[in-house]
Formats: sequence, structure tokens, C-alpha cells
Amino acid sequence: MAERLVLSGAVLPDGTAADIVIADGRIAQLAAPGTAAGPAEDCTGMAALPGLADAHIHLDKTLWGLPFEAHARGGTVAERIAFERSRRPSLPPVFGRGLALARHVAALGTTQVRSHVDIDTQSGLSGLFDLLRLREAVRDLVDIQIVAFPQSGILRDPGTAELLDAALREGADLVGGLDPSAIDGDAAGHLDIVFGLAERHGKGIDIHLHEPGAAGLGALADIARRTGAAAMQGRVAVSHAFALGHPAAGPAVDALARAGVAIVTNGPPRAVAMPPVAALQAAGVLVAAGSDNIRDLWSPHGNGDMLQRAGMIAYMQGLCAPEELELALALATSHGAALCGSDGGRIAPGGAADMVLVAAGSAAEALVSAPPRRMVIKRGRIIARDGKLES
Amino acid sequence: MAERLVLSGAVLPDGTAADIVIADGRIAQLAAPGTAAGPAEDCTGMAALPGLADAHIHLDKTLWGLPFEAHARGGTVAERIAFERSRRPSLPPVFGRGLALARHVAALGTTQVRSHVDIDTQSGLSGLFDLLRLREAVRDLVDIQIVAFPQSGILRDPGTAELLDAALREGADLVGGLDPSAIDGDAAGHLDIVFGLAERHGKGIDIHLHEPGAAGLGALADIARRTGAAAMQGRVAVSHAFALGHPAAGPAVDALARAGVAIVTNGPPRAVAMPPVAALQAAGVLVAAGSDNIRDLWSPHGNGDMLQRAGMIAYMQGLCAPEELELALALATSHGAALCGSDGGRIAPGGAADMVLVAAGSAAEALVSAPPRRMVIKRGRIIARDGKLES
Repeated sequence: MAERLVLSGAVLPDGTAADIVIADGRIAQLAAPGTAAGPAEDCTGMAALPGLADAHIHLDKTLWGLPFEAHARGGTVAERIAFERSRRPSLPPVFGRGLALARHVAALGTTQVRSHVDIDTQSGLSGLFDLLRLREAVRDLVDIQIVAFPQSGILRDPGTAELLDAALREGADLVGGLDPSAIDGDAAGHLDIVFGLAERHGKGIDIHLHEPGAAGLGALADIARRTGAAAMQGRVAVSHAFALGHPAAGPAVDALARAGVAIVTNGPPRAVAMPPVAALQAAGVLVAAGSDNIRDLWSPHGNGDMLQRAGMIAYMQGLCAPEELELALALATSHGAALCGSDGGRIAPGGAADMVLVAAGSAAEALVSAPPRRMVIKRGRIIARDGKLES
Repeated sequence: MAERLVLSGAVLPDGTAADIVIADGRIAQLAAPGTAAGPAEDCTGMAALPGLADAHIHLDKTLWGLPFEAHARGGTVAERIAFERSRRPSLPPVFGRGLALARHVAALGTTQVRSHVDIDTQSGLSGLFDLLRLREAVRDLVDIQIVAFPQSGILRDPGTAELLDAALREGADLVGGLDPSAIDGDAAGHLDIVFGLAERHGKGIDIHLHEPGAAGLGALADIARRTGAAAMQGRVAVSHAFALGHPAAGPAVDALARAGVAIVTNGPPRAVAMPPVAALQAAGVLVAAGSDNIRDLWSPHGNGDMLQRAGMIAYMQGLCAPEELELALALATSHGAALCGSDGGRIAPGGAADMVLVAAGSAAEALVSAPPRRMVIKRGRIIARDGKLES
């Protein structure tokens, strides 16, 4: 771990310039520009942002590093599950694909991800074991939280509940869920298992919820109620939650806020509704952003750049005012860190020295332009320069 | 003009590798890799794309090169017009701002743009004169088509019709229009003037149409009818055309196809509907893509990268299959060239040697990843390397 490093003259998110003093992997001090002593990197003309957080990624699904392939997405979630299961056995192991993507996003300034990993009766725990090994391999580059994700459902794929239980025992950090009504056809039964596993293992929850309209809003209300009952405030998240884009979402939003349930959005395509980021923030719901699929069997899109993703979400939702651009950046920095329970996500004394320095005059400019990454700092060490990892 | 240049081993849009032989500003030959003689650039590992076309840009509005400013967009088009008019007099001249942006987009591989320029009773023809001068200044980097655009309306800003007439006389290539019902309150009166000016000067038309739903569909049908009546097939475009995202847009789509009216989309934010790109293509309507506002008084967003814009449009509309990704790339290459009546937009013998070489294994991969630009070629000359202009 680097002893001491000074990032001199960087522009902080509040618009002021400073010498950022790093010691023992943490931010020790913010000093007036040109005043801090010690080994320095000249950061004049660069904006310093907190390390980027990708709150929803599938490191096990990506085809990163393989020849690019375009393809049609199946029409329904169920059809896409079947398509993936038909191709998965012939893919190279998760470890290599996930490693290639983890290194790619680290070079783009992502210092923390929450990755789902498929747990089902086809692949068992093999994806989890690869991801646990991968987490160790990239521990100096990026922190990885792992969600044991029942991609094929739980009740409709008998044996999955036991596999999820085993996954949490073996090291998964959270238990996932998937469209309790649409996939498993038994919302209460599905959520009973998910919340039961979380309580038994003392772990958090992150549920994929694509269900639109009334069904989705009902699931959100149920998840909020169960979160309150289990006293799991701050430890439950719902990913996608397209139903929050419904005009009648108000009561569900209030329930999520009261229960301390977070929302993760990837800024989805137009075919589905999208959670209204600013309204959720105003209601007191923590919202974080993620890439979701990156060049995998669900979508050929995605490039892993969370700054570009946050900028796209801001653009999609018409976030233009200073505080709105700040919110959009927070989706991919401080909010993601809060979701993952990390002490990164802010540039302030005492915080983890996870940062990305970009060629921009301000944090807001960085958000809208997704400019080249000059330097990435993970726990006080420079791990990448100009988009390339140091090792 | 460069005599002869060989781009050796580049991957063509069809997936094959070739030596691209350039002579006198045009593509002379596509030869087997490693077989062409002459001064060569090694393009191994690069995809060669046609030069990017930005079919809708406002070079006169941008604040590019000035300190970044975030801001709230006004609620209505009319409010935003008023906001811009309040700020415009204190901005630095159009020439310098437009030059900064034109050079920026050229370095990103944009070899051709269609720029609107505000013509109204506040700024008169001054923006046009600056843009005409700018066009000469960057003629070796990027081709600029100019639309005389009545940003403040025509009937509601008396004197504008005469200014548009003068603009076309002074060198504007097309006449613009703006929301005939919503802004001027007289759709027929507005379109009478626009089509009248086009016919009198023998120039094309490109109309901003934000009007949603039935009003917008009515305007589209009227524009198609007038295009047919004036025998202007292939010389009329409608920009934005949000109304085409309406479920009842079918008849308007057919009318546009029959009349040869093109559509230009920027992939708008979610607050408005969006023209369905694949359905328009299937119906025979030419669709091109543009940036629209780039860091100006209408929006702080936009970075001028047309590859990223086309990728975002594909993502927004769920275009994933090989032919869909090809279409999305065409929006920002061949379709834009066709709109502007250029002979670029394809990599084939006889075409203009306008190209961008990117760090990607294929054109489809380039579209989804918007990778670094290795080289930009304009009329056979290398004008930029690694994102920086040569001069």
C-alpha cells in the first residue's frame, strides 16, 4: 500500500481546486493547491471524482474479451432465460470473461461493483466459485460484492432454494430474487424464500424486478412491507423496478422510502418504463446506477463506462440543473458506495482513497462528456493511467 | 491533397480485412491485406468506418470552449426561446464557439454536419455570416451544410421571412421551419412561407417539429403533401418528429415514405416520444441521426460524439440484431451522407475518402463501444490521430 501521495491542483466536486493528500490508502487531508508536501502527481486541469460504482453488473454473463457478437434479444424474460441456458454450457469459464471485464471497468475508474451471479440447477455454484476467485484476483483494483441470483427462478427450478442457501454459506454477500409473479408465479412464495434466506444468513437482498404496472407496484409494496417487518432497512434493494415509471407509483415510492429500500437503475431502453430518479431522491429513496448487461447473451450493448451511463441517465430524464447533474453523478459514485456499505464515494478526509481523475474542468462537465480517464486511484495506489492499467 | 495513401489491414464494415487505397481524395481500390503498394499506415486491429455525419447540429448555439455551465431547461419551447434570446447578446461571437466545436467533432471522426443557424430579428444574419466564414476555416476538416432556421418563429417574429429570404441568397443551403402550429399558430401560413422560399431559391427544407400527437402527425402529413406537390422528393427533412412515436403514426409514416421526406432524430430524452427507427427504415423512410444541442442554452448535455449517439439510439430502441446494429451505424454514416447529398458515407471504390479508424474488431463493436478514434481521414488526408487534430 502506498505510503503517501499528493494529487496536486485537482478540481474537487465542489468546484474548488486542492491538493489531495493520501496516506495509507485513505484521504488524509485536502490542502490549498501547491501547499502539500510529499511525492506529487500534477493534476492541474483534471477533475477528481470519487471512484465510480457499478451497482448492477453481471460479471459472470459477459462475453468481454471474446469476438463481438450482435444478436436479437428474445421477446420475454422467460424466452431470454431459455436462450441463455442453451448457450451457457459452451461458453468459456466465468473466471476469464469476468476478469477481462473487471480489468476493463477498473481502467475506466470503477472502483466498486455489485455483481449478480447466476445460481440455478444448470450451473449450480460454479459461477459463484469463479467470482469468489476473481474477487481475490482483482482485489487491488476493484471491490466486488456478490449477489446470489436465481436467474431461472426459484420455485420453477426446484433445487434453487437449496443452492441459494449454499451460495450464501460459501461467500455470496446478498441473496437475489427475480420477478416473483411473472417468473415464479407465486409472489409470496418467492419472497418468503428470499427474505427467509437473508434473515437466516444475516445478509442483504437485491431483487431483479422487471414486472411493469400494477403487478410490479404490488411487488414493491410487498418488498417494502417485508423489509420493515424484518428490520432490514438499508439492506434491501430492488433492481430495475420499471413499475416506478408508472403514473400511479406514488404510494409504492413512499413505502420504499419509509422502509429504506434502495433502487438500482441502468437507464433502460425505451420499451420499458424507468424509475424517475429525481422524484425518488426527493422522496428519500436511495437510487444507484449500474450497467446491467455488458456485451452478453441478453444484450450486445454496454461498454462498462459508469460515467457515460450516469450521463445517459441524466440525459434520458432531462436532468440539467446543477443539483440534478450532481444527483446523476451521485448515482454512480456516492449512492453506489452507500448501497454497497463502502466508505468510498466521497472526496473528504477519512474516506477511502478511491478516485478517478478525468480531463474535465468540473464534475458536472465530466458527467456530460465522459472524458478520458487520466488516473485511477484504488486504496491510495495509482492503478491506471490514460485508460490503461499499470499492471 | 494527398496523392496516395494505403490504409493497410483495416477491417471493413462487411467484416473483411483490406488494404484501402486512397488516391486524390477518393477511395481508389480495396485490395487484399498486405498487397497494395505505396505509403502505408498500419491499420491492423482497427475498424474502418465511413466518416461520421452529424445531421442536426447547432454550431451557432454551442458554448463549447467556454467554462461549462449547468442550467435548468425552461418548460416549453417558447420559454426556452425567450431564455436564449435573453442570454444571446452577451455571448462571444458565433465564429469562435462554432470553430471550437467543429474542430472537436472533426477529431472524433465527424466529416460532415448539417448545422442549423438561428435567423431572427434579434440576431439577423450575423450567425449565418459567421458560419459561412467558419465553413471556409474548417473546409479541410469537415463539410458544413447550413440551414437558415427561424428559431423565434416566422409569423410571430415579423421580418423573419425577409431575413430567411436574404439568408438563402447569402449562401444558406436549406430553409428551416419550426413547429408551425405551436409556435406560429398558423400551420398553413408557416409552411406556405417555408415551401415558397425553398421553391423560389431552389433549395431544400429541414423543419424542426417538436409538436406531439395529432398536431404533429397533421403537420407531417401536410409536409409530405406539400413535398409531393412541389416535386421536392429527397430534398425535405423533418427533424425530431416526436409525433412519429405515437401509436397512430402509421399513415403519416406511409405519407413520408411516398413523398421521400427524411427524418432526423437525436434520440431525445424520455419526456417526449421518439421516431421508431427500424419501423421507419422498413417503411422506406430515410432516417439520419444528429446531436442537436451540444452544451448550449437549451441543454448542458451533448459531447458531439456521433458514434456514441448512434449507439445510444440503438440502445434506447432495443436494436440488437446484426442488421439492426448496421442500421444504427448507418444513421450516423451513410444515411447522413445521403441526407446531405454527399458522396461519402460508404467505403467503396469511387467514394470520397472520408473515414474514421477506431480501436474495434468490427463496425458493430465500434457502434456499441464508441472506442477511441485512431485516425480520421478527410478527402484522403489524415487530419487527426488519437483524438487530436494534426493541425
